[in-house]
Amino acid sequence: MANQKEIPYKIYLEENEMPRQWYNVRADMKNKPAPLLNPGTLQPMTAEELSGVFCDELVKQELDNDNRHIDIPQEILDFYKMYRPSPLVRAYCLEKKLDTPAKIYYKFEGNNTSGSHKLNSAIAQAYYAKKQGLKGVTTETGAGQWGTALSMACAYLDLDCKVYMVKVSYEQKPFRREVMRTYGASVTPSPSDTTAVGRRILAEHPGTTGSLGCAISEAVEVATSTPGYRYVLGSVLNQVLLHQSIIGLETKAALDKYGITPDLIIGCAGGGSNLGGLIAPFMGEKLRGEKNYRFIAVEPASCPSLTRGKFVYDFCDTGMVTPLAKMYTLGSNFIPSPNHAGGLRYHGMSSILSQLYHDGYMEATSVEQTSVFEAAQMFARVEGILPAPESSHAIRVAIDEALKCKETGEEKTIVFGLTGTGYFDMVAYEKFNDGVMDDYIPTDEDLAVGFAGIPKFPGNEI
Amino acid sequence: MANQKEIPYKIYLEENEMPRQWYNVRADMKNKPAPLLNPGTLQPMTAEELSGVFCDELVKQELDNDNRHIDIPQEILDFYKMYRPSPLVRAYCLEKKLDTPAKIYYKFEGNNTSGSHKLNSAIAQAYYAKKQGLKGVTTETGAGQWGTALSMACAYLDLDCKVYMVKVSYEQKPFRREVMRTYGASVTPSPSDTTAVGRRILAEHPGTTGSLGCAISEAVEVATSTPGYRYVLGSVLNQVLLHQSIIGLETKAALDKYGITPDLIIGCAGGGSNLGGLIAPFMGEKLRGEKNYRFIAVEPASCPSLTRGKFVYDFCDTGMVTPLAKMYTLGSNFIPSPNHAGGLRYHGMSSILSQLYHDGYMEATSVEQTSVFEAAQMFARVEGILPAPESSHAIRVAIDEALKCKETGEEKTIVFGLTGTGYFDMVAYEKFNDGVMDDYIPTDEDLAVGFAGIPKFPGNEI
Repeated sequence: MANQKEIPYKIYLEENEMPRQWYNVRADMKNKPAPLLNPGTLQPMTAEELSGVFCDELVKQELDNDNRHIDIPQEILDFYKMYRPSPLVRAYCLEKKLDTPAKIYYKFEGNNTSGSHKLNSAIAQAYYAKKQGLKGVTTETGAGQWGTALSMACAYLDLDCKVYMVKVSYEQKPFRREVMRTYGASVTPSPSDTTAVGRRILAEHPGTTGSLGCAISEAVEVATSTPGYRYVLGSVLNQVLLHQSIIGLETKAALDKYGITPDLIIGCAGGGSNLGGLIAPFMGEKLRGEKNYRFIAVEPASCPSLTRGKFVYDFCDTGMVTPLAKMYTLGSNFIPSPNHAGGLRYHGMSSILSQLYHDGYMEATSVEQTSVFEAAQMFARVEGILPAPESSHAIRVAIDEALKCKETGEEKTIVFGLTGTGYFDMVAYEKFNDGVMDDYIPTDEDLAVGFAGIPKFPGNEI
Repeated sequence: MANQKEIPYKIYLEENEMPRQWYNVRADMKNKPAPLLNPGTLQPMTAEELSGVFCDELVKQELDNDNRHIDIPQEILDFYKMYRPSPLVRAYCLEKKLDTPAKIYYKFEGNNTSGSHKLNSAIAQAYYAKKQGLKGVTTETGAGQWGTALSMACAYLDLDCKVYMVKVSYEQKPFRREVMRTYGASVTPSPSDTTAVGRRILAEHPGTTGSLGCAISEAVEVATSTPGYRYVLGSVLNQVLLHQSIIGLETKAALDKYGITPDLIIGCAGGGSNLGGLIAPFMGEKLRGEKNYRFIAVEPASCPSLTRGKFVYDFCDTGMVTPLAKMYTLGSNFIPSPNHAGGLRYHGMSSILSQLYHDGYMEATSVEQTSVFEAAQMFARVEGILPAPESSHAIRVAIDEALKCKETGEEKTIVFGLTGTGYFDMVAYEKFNDGVMDDYIPTDEDLAVGFAGIPKFPGNEI
């Protein structure tokens, strides 16, 4: 084991130390995540049914609960080399600022133009689409990180990319839109009149500013009705967590290089793509009984799917055109309060993470946004990186845990995921800087409205 | 020499391979850069005179033409470790796209929240100010990269930071302003009524949108009239090029590790901070007659100080409150056309680079902005990084040189500086995406207006 003093500020893997396989945590889960259901028959979706929506190789990955390791194709490895390995950073300056005996590390995924970890799955999904000979892909984006990542991957592979962007984000984040356009994507504000489901939603809710759930419905409709197109999704799905395992695998390899064993791994959680990827190989060790770690999912108090949602089957979208997924959900028509800044606004949570949480392998907590931005500002000033609001949820809890160590004197090793940068979130920072940001915690009555939309069938009682 | 096949996408130095001294190219110049002059006496500025404007250690560095190597203080090295070493990237994907036998490398300085190389000098200048016991510093910023960098450095050191931001940028780039505020800086649009020189400029030019030259005047006035404050500058000065030599030193160390000798080194040039830093150690070898390299400075056709300016003494600011510097200049009242996007809009050029160019050690060329954005877009799509407009000037010429190699079949090794990212320049990208960007080349008559403002005294004929 290396002496702690020798640990550099940033641990980079060499190119030849980079993982060459993704890790599929499902292989080590005793209770597998529940399968997607056909909402008409309530039977598990078959590969054939799914292949109308997703390209074939991704369907295989989506349904694969058995293979522990899956080879990363060389073309994807080459793309990864353009922006990976991402650094594992020792937060020396934050530790000093907090005067804590805790040792804090963060895996920084923001050093690429998409500004987040989303590129890890975007390139994989675009690659398989291209390999299948497709013309293009459709998707939705909210805060815009996923749409940007997919645009970049599609530009690299010369694949068409149609993005449905939640209308409120489209209007408030014109620069995100321009980044996507620079990469050649078409960007449509959602709901739009380009789809039947969009027109229906517009007719029912004329003034709506949109939601991720709406945008998913539109993107799926276009993918399934346009020859040569498939739909891709940036979070929630099993395949996405598989691709994102690259985050955890690199983190573990970097820690192992210096003989470091974390006590606590913390990640923000919206649909679960970052958290699921970050913790994957560590969770594998825990599931196999080899090691014990604490895992904490951090979600916004304004969109608390794990901490206040129901663990049932629900639609993945607002228009109810997708299969049903078993997950912690707030109901597919749940829309977070407009004062909620940043992403992490999806109504449900990855089936894998939902099952792990349900089985007690992981903790979850929720935090309010002004305290999140306080943490973000402190972090920016001492560590230099202006974090995304999403990532700052993890920073908040990492700081809180480090301060607990200060009280108890424990020298815990804390690892958290710094999923991205906040360069396109300055409207939210401006609110915070001006002291006009406020918090919102939905009441039980607010949540009841969302829960009422959850489909009811035997075994799916809320 | 390592086999070319073994060269990774990104060459990172280990922490212990990072340079521990800056390199002072002046020590190797036979013709030293001309000294700053007191505009009243036309005598060289003394250390004492300069110490009212700059803090003492920086005055020493400014005047030091002799010491080849200057130790980097440990505190600055520690800060550098947070975001350095920056990667030297082999542009495999760009080479493939261009189908060129040239080997292209770029030193990427954009992986930090300031989005550029400016942080390298910001932390140094802030450190020496702090060490001298000062309360704060003042500066100007145009596109905003320097202001952001200085804000970050000051936040880290708990030093007050007052930024005068060119009014047009302040209004068009509210997000840049918010980043600076998040780091605790105060940001004032310039010209403003907070200074005498600002009030004078406002009275003379009521509708002015400001210029770097105006903002410098205001920042200098505040620094020299407020106890405990000094002025700092992000480019042009000898001290800045000294600090920025870290770029070139890392680049050279990374190339040396793989036995690579560049034929051609290309950098964008506004005030010269990046280019001067990137080429410094290579220029040293050339000056000492050890090796030969081609160096190309790339400037915007709309602000062509090297290619169309005069090599004379001129004021560094519009308000004529600064010393005179001998440099290639367009005149201190030159303001680039409003259609000019991005930075590189300073009327003059570093005295060091001006002298080297004058003595034939370096070439210069100018490019028009639509061709710059074409290069930027191509680069973004194949290499993944959305470049700053400034950096894209170097990309343009690197691509042109690589295409020449395609014609001749030469396997030249080209290195260019990718100084930063364009995340806060999406207004310019939007114009380009919408096809409404245009070019502007000043006529000789346009330039004559600027030249008329150059001070006239014996030996300073234009």
